[in-house]
Amino acid sequence: MLSGPRLAIDRALERFLADAHEQLISIDSELTPISSALREFLAGGKRLRPLFALAGFAGAGGSLEEENIFQACVSLELLQACALIHDDMMDGSDTRRGAPSMHRRFEREHSERRGFGDSENFGHATALLIGDLALVWSTQALNLSGISDQQLRSVNPIFDIMRVELMAGQYLDMHGGSLESISVESALKIATYKSGKYTIERPLHFGGALAGADADSEVLAAYSGYGIPLGIAFQLRDDLLGVFGDSSVTGKPAGDDLMEGKRTALIAHAQERLSPAAEREFTSLFGRKNLTQNEIDTLRTLIQGSGAVDFIEKLIEEKTILALTAINNPKITSSGRELLADLAIKATQRST
Amino acid sequence: MLSGPRLAIDRALERFLADAHEQLISIDSELTPISSALREFLAGGKRLRPLFALAGFAGAGGSLEEENIFQACVSLELLQACALIHDDMMDGSDTRRGAPSMHRRFEREHSERRGFGDSENFGHATALLIGDLALVWSTQALNLSGISDQQLRSVNPIFDIMRVELMAGQYLDMHGGSLESISVESALKIATYKSGKYTIERPLHFGGALAGADADSEVLAAYSGYGIPLGIAFQLRDDLLGVFGDSSVTGKPAGDDLMEGKRTALIAHAQERLSPAAEREFTSLFGRKNLTQNEIDTLRTLIQGSGAVDFIEKLIEEKTILALTAINNPKITSSGRELLADLAIKATQRST
Repeated sequence: MLSGPRLAIDRALERFLADAHEQLISIDSELTPISSALREFLAGGKRLRPLFALAGFAGAGGSLEEENIFQACVSLELLQACALIHDDMMDGSDTRRGAPSMHRRFEREHSERRGFGDSENFGHATALLIGDLALVWSTQALNLSGISDQQLRSVNPIFDIMRVELMAGQYLDMHGGSLESISVESALKIATYKSGKYTIERPLHFGGALAGADADSEVLAAYSGYGIPLGIAFQLRDDLLGVFGDSSVTGKPAGDDLMEGKRTALIAHAQERLSPAAEREFTSLFGRKNLTQNEIDTLRTLIQGSGAVDFIEKLIEEKTILALTAINNPKITSSGRELLADLAIKATQRST
Repeated sequence: MLSGPRLAIDRALERFLADAHEQLISIDSELTPISSALREFLAGGKRLRPLFALAGFAGAGGSLEEENIFQACVSLELLQACALIHDDMMDGSDTRRGAPSMHRRFEREHSERRGFGDSENFGHATALLIGDLALVWSTQALNLSGISDQQLRSVNPIFDIMRVELMAGQYLDMHGGSLESISVESALKIATYKSGKYTIERPLHFGGALAGADADSEVLAAYSGYGIPLGIAFQLRDDLLGVFGDSSVTGKPAGDDLMEGKRTALIAHAQERLSPAAEREFTSLFGRKNLTQNEIDTLRTLIQGSGAVDFIEKLIEEKTILALTAINNPKITSSGRELLADLAIKATQRST
């Protein structure tokens, strides 16, 4: 059921990128690598946020025969490109979806042509600007989508708060990593903003607003009841995979989150439950780059032994049930409910 | 004549920031330092782009009695905050307007509280997000300004292309720095995009569109005839100051651009004219961090001796005359012309 909308989003994205590329290289053909890199980057991804927006649109009575809606949803995928490119810089990630991350790609390009100055700086500066460009393009995609003045006015406040919440969630997450530990409550709040709101609730509201739903309508409230717990469940699954996932499946190094020192609800719960001796061992390893396989296994055993994995699995189950109950609402159209049920499954696969 | 509009812009900015702060900390009070840092950052600056937008608005017949226009112009100052914060990261600048640059500020904050992880990374990640937030707020400020649907529709394409051109100019500038040398022509193109278009022409168009001027109107064409040469002149003055300026006046270390390896029209012209021996000496020093005062003086003497300073001074004069001639156009209102003449003087002071 999702493959049709997904293809329509891909086509709309391709159309926007072709026009944006023309506009960019009309400034200078030297900008071709920037546009190409962003296009290649955007070839991957599950289009989760545009798909949720489409589901929100359909669920609030919108017709998926309207082409404009696909063009409008492209803006969410461009926003996500900015988030990922900048996130990889902040995390110092070398790879993304099995390929070099944007800053590494341009670091290598600079190094191969023996560019003047420092290659790492060049890579970071280029990725910074490409992320900024993706953010700028995301607004442009919405403005050029062909939606009506009324639709633009309704969706703008949602798109604005969504972007503020994204940056806020990113900061809280990153800031949490600079503390010795954070509470489970704080970790769940970060998951609420980074996944519940940014990935699901706000895209649903975005689509609902485009279909004419009011900000205080029951349908948008039902979307919140579905989106926030589902997003948390989705983030918690991601957190488990970040520690225990098979790198051939996740596309990231084994124990990536452990080396990165990512303070998830899983880690917060484990830290609260470890004995003082175990906590010392944990702290001496957690967040160290280049952990050996043995050290990763030690951390995994400590986390498992604390009961945190069972706690998180139970939480995932509870939140998923909450989410699925919330869409059992007659204010959401049946086609919308079907899309939401399909997306609940898609979203709990590894995020990209 | 400029102090009234400047005060009105400051008030509008303060109003937007107060609301944006409330929205941000309603997410989490931990976000207070982010909002405070951006507010302090925005306390400085000449408000050049909002002032040009107001001049463009008045010149196309708009009335400065309308409060909405000031709120709309705030978006340009927020965009500039993003540009500066990210630019300082790319350039590795330690200071901005005599205070620590954003990434250094948060590096220090992390280091003082002995935060977990690397302080430099934390500083960069925080500044990256604050710049992103400023970019997001810049769109939000426009959307919330209270302008009509018609005004929003007219100004959006200009704001979109302006931001694309900004990122393009930043990339061309940064990329130029990774080459052994660039042509005077390329350097002037960078100045056209970074200053001519971004600082002057597009803000004027932004204001003109808000006053109802069509994209192909004579008044917007006159703004281009004024804005592009004036912006180039302004950038060329900045380039001279970046090499020869007194640090107590510029607020930047002496010879800053020399250590940064900034490939300006001044440098491009000098490199084209130096003898092979002088060129070798130049290349061995240019772009090295921590140049001694003697080495800075050597580079200054080489540039001066190449005739590049005279060439640039002459170019500044020519471009300024072109700009001032262009505003002698009866399609621009007399109050608009007065503002533009005042701004021509203000803009050729050191940029901030």
